[in-house]
Amino acid sequence: MIDDATICAIATPRGNGAISILRLSGRDAYEIAARLVHFPSRAKDLKELPANTIHYASIVSGEEIIDEVLISLFRAPHSYTGEDLIEISCHGAIYIQQKILELLVKAGARLAGPGEFTMRSFLNGKMDLSQAEAVADLIASSSAASHRVAMNQMRGGFSSEIAVLREQLLNFISLIELELDFSEEDVEFADRKDLQELVKQISGLIRKLIVSFKLGNVIKNGVPVAIAGKTNVGKSTLLNALLHEDRAIVSEIAGTTRDVIEDVITMDGISFRFIDTAGLRKTSDTIETIGIEKTLEKIGHAYIVLYVIDATEKIPEIDRLIGKIKKRLEGSDRKLVILLNKIDFLGEKQIAALSDRKKFRNLTESDHVLPISASYGDNIDALASLLLELVRGDQHGEDDVIVTNVRHFEALKNAGEAIDRVSQGLQTGLSPDFLAQDIREVLHYLGEITGEVTTDEILGNIFSKFCIGK
Amino acid sequence: MIDDATICAIATPRGNGAISILRLSGRDAYEIAARLVHFPSRAKDLKELPANTIHYASIVSGEEIIDEVLISLFRAPHSYTGEDLIEISCHGAIYIQQKILELLVKAGARLAGPGEFTMRSFLNGKMDLSQAEAVADLIASSSAASHRVAMNQMRGGFSSEIAVLREQLLNFISLIELELDFSEEDVEFADRKDLQELVKQISGLIRKLIVSFKLGNVIKNGVPVAIAGKTNVGKSTLLNALLHEDRAIVSEIAGTTRDVIEDVITMDGISFRFIDTAGLRKTSDTIETIGIEKTLEKIGHAYIVLYVIDATEKIPEIDRLIGKIKKRLEGSDRKLVILLNKIDFLGEKQIAALSDRKKFRNLTESDHVLPISASYGDNIDALASLLLELVRGDQHGEDDVIVTNVRHFEALKNAGEAIDRVSQGLQTGLSPDFLAQDIREVLHYLGEITGEVTTDEILGNIFSKFCIGK
Repeated sequence: MIDDATICAIATPRGNGAISILRLSGRDAYEIAARLVHFPSRAKDLKELPANTIHYASIVSGEEIIDEVLISLFRAPHSYTGEDLIEISCHGAIYIQQKILELLVKAGARLAGPGEFTMRSFLNGKMDLSQAEAVADLIASSSAASHRVAMNQMRGGFSSEIAVLREQLLNFISLIELELDFSEEDVEFADRKDLQELVKQISGLIRKLIVSFKLGNVIKNGVPVAIAGKTNVGKSTLLNALLHEDRAIVSEIAGTTRDVIEDVITMDGISFRFIDTAGLRKTSDTIETIGIEKTLEKIGHAYIVLYVIDATEKIPEIDRLIGKIKKRLEGSDRKLVILLNKIDFLGEKQIAALSDRKKFRNLTESDHVLPISASYGDNIDALASLLLELVRGDQHGEDDVIVTNVRHFEALKNAGEAIDRVSQGLQTGLSPDFLAQDIREVLHYLGEITGEVTTDEILGNIFSKFCIGK
Repeated sequence: MIDDATICAIATPRGNGAISILRLSGRDAYEIAARLVHFPSRAKDLKELPANTIHYASIVSGEEIIDEVLISLFRAPHSYTGEDLIEISCHGAIYIQQKILELLVKAGARLAGPGEFTMRSFLNGKMDLSQAEAVADLIASSSAASHRVAMNQMRGGFSSEIAVLREQLLNFISLIELELDFSEEDVEFADRKDLQELVKQISGLIRKLIVSFKLGNVIKNGVPVAIAGKTNVGKSTLLNALLHEDRAIVSEIAGTTRDVIEDVITMDGISFRFIDTAGLRKTSDTIETIGIEKTLEKIGHAYIVLYVIDATEKIPEIDRLIGKIKKRLEGSDRKLVILLNKIDFLGEKQIAALSDRKKFRNLTESDHVLPISASYGDNIDALASLLLELVRGDQHGEDDVIVTNVRHFEALKNAGEAIDRVSQGLQTGLSPDFLAQDIREVLHYLGEITGEVTTDEILGNIFSKFCIGK
């Protein structure tokens, strides 16, 4: 995968459009392009033209003119890849895009693999690995929140957090190594208390990043919400009511990696994915056939569970169902919202009774309970606000670094385990060389994140998830 | 629709990709862009930067960085639209594209209508109307042939053909006007024979262009081919055999403007659309239920009809069917290919007998007959070659101008009728001022093609078919 061939790809989304861009990057980019680029007005030598300029030209195949294009010129190292790079802006016909790609390959370029331009950018030191990964996240970002996190990471926010950790670890090692130099004298130059304090700080930073992953994952992929409840309690009506919520931008994501169609609403920049709702959307409320046991199954991946209960049931029965779902979710950190639906069937007094938590043995002050009418939209806006609040409660400050990448999460977990060993070693009086070894392990795992430590396999895994042309 | 607002649009195909391009064109393009473009490295003034250069920049919304982008600068009149124009090359996330578009609108730009950039190009005299129309054809082109015709038209091939006509018409008028100057003296300065000759030439040119439309339409939209024949003769097997022909690039076009799914194969740059094949593809050969009358219905729009007959039938029955289909197509200019299928069931002698045209009362030397086996692929390559030959036979020389646009076709027909009136007028000794009037009518219709004569309505019609961003 890693070679010094000159690579080419279509960089704009697939399909017909006004404009498409082809990218050509590598040592021979100018030589290859010169074989198919002709300047109609006057003879220009592509190789002599200044960098960062745009030129009107024709793409020719023998005698035939394939397109009239704009050529943008970049030169190493001042390009995205750090190599000589040329972008061809052509008419957006699929036929033309493919024809030019074909001509580039005939002229000596190789088709780029997924993410190969960005990989070269990393290999040429234009960005570290976590920044390169953020490029893919940025392109995939579909909400303000996921966009902000990816942009911060691409601009080096995460990398500088790792750099802080790195600096502290090197401080620790320098203190320890001082002892190693005098190890035969059995003197402790480094104050053990200072070391403990430093390890605590490092551990705290790593811990904070690890914890942020849960939120990061949710921001990146959308907050998974399950709607559960017995048959005929109004689950699909609730879903529709939420999807029609004024502030909501509704979209249907055809399951490409997942197998189900999911409904997504984005509120205040946070996406909520209603998981496994295909059945709910198709069936009308009355023929809703998914029973309670069945719906509980899909709670598995939910971050928030909306549990719908028919408010027209007797209070002891409602209480019993609340007890049942709370027991079911015991020990999990899923957030439960109990929705007492169909209050449009109830009188004012009955609704007031539902709001009295003392009437329910299984309810505490911290439980989220909301009487609603899905049919009439009563309290649906309150529910929307509650959903936002539940996610925001987990959110740190705006500028905090949030880990969104599973690979980074794993590396941080490994780093966290190693730092725990250092902490224990300090307590049990482990010899400085062993302590230093564990610290180097922490550095190793952090190096995996930024790409200082890497293998072809890791790179292959990372960039294979990119789109071609990036 | 026509105003001097600064317009913006996403110019690359819809969807996520590595790169997307936004276009901003108009008097205030630089002022508007300056409101959201920040240069990170050092302070640059967008308005002072030279044309045809590319700059690395950030797009900002208040404090928030929306993306890191490349900005390409063009200045009137040296831009696509002839106006000040800026292209923003951003990361291809839909979120980012829409966010930047939103910022551009907030900063004072208006969303561009379909084809509005190209319309401005026309209005600013960068191209004539037929060239502008060719831009849309070029983007829609999906085969080498349709691409070549559109490219030729965009580069002014058609326009220069019109210019030749125009010149000849002006020659005619100058001769006629000489007479008008001396009309009271009742002298004929212009030799009537010379005039007749000139009109014949003009008429011939117009006629040639009108005739080319049939082929042009076929090239632009693909050659419509119908597969007809009785039940169980192997129509669907034939279709599959053709679709699997080695040289063929098979694609399924979901009917957006049409209602049916069509199968398309492209051979040597020419697309063949197998019309109304949805039924053929779904049913297997044995349960093929479309009878002869039914299949004849769909011949309506075909350019070529493949009529399949079961070769294991007796020769008189085959002959009868040949007679029937030939009678059916009598007077139409559809091309008929008779396919005697299932020769795998026949012995050598029987196949030889089928090849003897004298045995068939209804066959002449000029008929296209081919014994095939759709199941075993026998002679399918010969059929493919024949299909190409049938289209190529109609094709003029490579460099000939071919009319592909219905609007041009209509204008040419009107011009043709007017020139016929001139010809008649010459024969009946019509007075020179009437002749000149008819010639001016011809010029008017030709002016409609190139856009010298136009209305908002015509422009609206033409550009509404463009994609947004072009």
